[in-house]
Amino acid sequence: MSHPDFSMAPEAVEQAISRLKKLFGERLNVSKAVREQHARGEGLVTSLAPDAVVWPENKAEVCEILKLCDELAVPVIAFGAGSSLEGHVSAPHGGICVDMSRMNALLEVHLEDGDCVVQPGITREELNAQLKGTGFFFPVDPGANATIGGMVSTRASGTTTMRYGSMVHNVMSLEVALADGRLVRLGTRARKSSAGFDLVHLMVGSEGVLGLITEITLRLHPLPVEVAAAACAFPSLAAAVDAVTELSMSGLPFARIEFLDEHQVRACNEYSKLGLTELPTLFLEFHGSETGVKEQAELAQEVATSHGGIEFKWATRPEDRSQLWKARHLAYFAALALKPGCISVVADVCVPMSALAEQVQLAREHIDAEGLVAPILGHVGDGNFHVLFMPMPDQPAEQAAVDRVYAAMVERALAVGGTCTGEHGIGMGKKSKLLAQYGPEVVGLMRAIKTAWDPKGILNPGKIF
Amino acid sequence: MSHPDFSMAPEAVEQAISRLKKLFGERLNVSKAVREQHARGEGLVTSLAPDAVVWPENKAEVCEILKLCDELAVPVIAFGAGSSLEGHVSAPHGGICVDMSRMNALLEVHLEDGDCVVQPGITREELNAQLKGTGFFFPVDPGANATIGGMVSTRASGTTTMRYGSMVHNVMSLEVALADGRLVRLGTRARKSSAGFDLVHLMVGSEGVLGLITEITLRLHPLPVEVAAAACAFPSLAAAVDAVTELSMSGLPFARIEFLDEHQVRACNEYSKLGLTELPTLFLEFHGSETGVKEQAELAQEVATSHGGIEFKWATRPEDRSQLWKARHLAYFAALALKPGCISVVADVCVPMSALAEQVQLAREHIDAEGLVAPILGHVGDGNFHVLFMPMPDQPAEQAAVDRVYAAMVERALAVGGTCTGEHGIGMGKKSKLLAQYGPEVVGLMRAIKTAWDPKGILNPGKIF
Repeated sequence: MSHPDFSMAPEAVEQAISRLKKLFGERLNVSKAVREQHARGEGLVTSLAPDAVVWPENKAEVCEILKLCDELAVPVIAFGAGSSLEGHVSAPHGGICVDMSRMNALLEVHLEDGDCVVQPGITREELNAQLKGTGFFFPVDPGANATIGGMVSTRASGTTTMRYGSMVHNVMSLEVALADGRLVRLGTRARKSSAGFDLVHLMVGSEGVLGLITEITLRLHPLPVEVAAAACAFPSLAAAVDAVTELSMSGLPFARIEFLDEHQVRACNEYSKLGLTELPTLFLEFHGSETGVKEQAELAQEVATSHGGIEFKWATRPEDRSQLWKARHLAYFAALALKPGCISVVADVCVPMSALAEQVQLAREHIDAEGLVAPILGHVGDGNFHVLFMPMPDQPAEQAAVDRVYAAMVERALAVGGTCTGEHGIGMGKKSKLLAQYGPEVVGLMRAIKTAWDPKGILNPGKIF
Repeated sequence: MSHPDFSMAPEAVEQAISRLKKLFGERLNVSKAVREQHARGEGLVTSLAPDAVVWPENKAEVCEILKLCDELAVPVIAFGAGSSLEGHVSAPHGGICVDMSRMNALLEVHLEDGDCVVQPGITREELNAQLKGTGFFFPVDPGANATIGGMVSTRASGTTTMRYGSMVHNVMSLEVALADGRLVRLGTRARKSSAGFDLVHLMVGSEGVLGLITEITLRLHPLPVEVAAAACAFPSLAAAVDAVTELSMSGLPFARIEFLDEHQVRACNEYSKLGLTELPTLFLEFHGSETGVKEQAELAQEVATSHGGIEFKWATRPEDRSQLWKARHLAYFAALALKPGCISVVADVCVPMSALAEQVQLAREHIDAEGLVAPILGHVGDGNFHVLFMPMPDQPAEQAAVDRVYAAMVERALAVGGTCTGEHGIGMGKKSKLLAQYGPEVVGLMRAIKTAWDPKGILNPGKIF
């Protein structure tokens, strides 16, 4: 019952669409244009469109869709902002795409408890805009303006994980519609619990194959009193990474330490007019009280200098700080602009800190040896780095080179005890890499849970396994 | 296949014992005395002894035990330090107790990565003793000197969770022997990963019903440069709790904030000669750099004073600090000393911060109304509190009163969005409370995983469900 080759009867999906049409009217769409918009995220190029897209407005409607699709054994694929990079939202077996964009409310804010309850379709930027004035914010920041539901489903992290944790640390409770349309509540609003299996963490990162998330209770964090940011160039990649390793051993709560190699700095300079020295560079951000920020900043400067850090450029005014981080968030588009017409493959591995400098260096050497254009950047405080490959769509040789470099990156990361994906997930793109990482027995344990919870295999088939 | 009433053929266990005897010789024991020592933890009074106790010395032997017991459908119960409070180590269906005390090595320390690899039988105190001189420590501190394997299995937390997190946040990777004796590796040594289902977190808190843990990779933390501790008395419980709520909203990384009510302070004064004012009291500990600790201490004093805090008694010398925390760790025994001959029932609930003051107050009022002796203490920075009930074994009326007060505590905790256990787990003692918290559908989802991974139900039967 593992459905490696799930297939659906054409009459089943026709029946599902006709029954859903009666319930959802104009909120169900089968036009080619709309289906194509929901056929892929940011990553995969291949368009794998669903048979229909439906926009529920509340949890009861999500349950209705599931009951109906479970009865007819029709695939159901949740869709958030479409920013996933590994094909999580594609519909390789067709079926019904459930677009969560109308379920985007901030439902509750509990200031004294430091938590809030949201619907899955709210984006992280919208959430933070609505939290303005409360003294709290939601810190997890994967770069893209993803939906919270999508961030739960891919176990997102990003630039602030060092201090605030990833989605693993910031989801307290979930309401989930199961494959057969039953609605369950997992977790509580208490800050900790030892009550039975940790099903919240099982759902976080499960990529839509175990249930559709209808409500999320998130932990919020007090807005820091003081924020400072800086960029510092280093003579070499190794020097920059060594500085990060030393900083991470201090125990101080740095908010962000991001690495951009010289190619990425050049791309950001061109795209965002930063005027930075085109050398391996760290972007740092410090959150805390006035004295806390001062202390972190002083230590960072001291450590950077001791590792040959060349200049510490402070972004003291809020607008300079925003410019710096906007540039970091636009790094992806800045890189793409280096090669008009290219497609993108964003490599994502995460390794123990002790292996980081060598792993990044080996990736760089391999990229150069293959003659590719591919900046490197990463959340180096967590040992997580990305290569932005940009092959041209009409150059199969170039794409083959990308595959070779990426496969070697993953192989080396696994050899040093790392993972094939720090934050992008498995989706359709990394199924063979998951198998390489864990082997068939562990993947079999995952499959066994999937089969127990979704015996017909209707939830996002073709992903993870 | 859910085994609510697992039962085993007597000849099966006889056969298991005779085959294990050949493999383990003197390391298998069937004497009544040894079986009784392994029949219960600290909590339940009823003795439910296994049929035999075996001491494996390596993972291969653990796998051998499982293969054999799976073949014969004989229960397997892991045993650590025996400090569990909810009957996790009892053997209600008989079977083989696997005592992990000989698998207690610190296998690897990776200083640059801030992690280490241990066997399950090492205790947290032994681990920290062996880490001395590395600059790192393992901070999770449930009070008892539990084994790391036991702490993983009950999702332990304790006094330092505010700053360092619980076992949820500090287990990076696990090696697990499955029910049928296959050995698998879950998680990696990378600081984050989005590779498939989060099976590490599924194992953390699974109470020995999904597999036997044979190796654990733990995150370590840099030893704080500066540590300071203090005790502060308050005019009322509500004032103390309000001070904690305000401190938790500051975003400062307090290491420990523990609450002891006036009854517990009196018990500790008598038992540990503390000389504290017998009022509701907070024990606080501050970790960090010199400036960081100073800042936290100043804020704590300011906030305490504004909530009527009466005296801030500093324990500045390390020996005074140890005395304070030793007294806190001995609180359980201090309380028991109030009523010689009593048995103990340690209640454990966790609620959102906004509900904490009222919940503690209502528990106190109910205790007093029933005429019970029962100090209250807790990890109030997380909303987690305990009542130490001490009924006399020959007083059924008193025990019935304890049951009433405890049941009402759990009911109120659930009503405000809390949990029936913050850190002690379900075991045998809280199965009906788990059902009350989540309902049959969520418990059914847990059971489905159990059945998929352990179809014969041999792993610690009679627990959680």
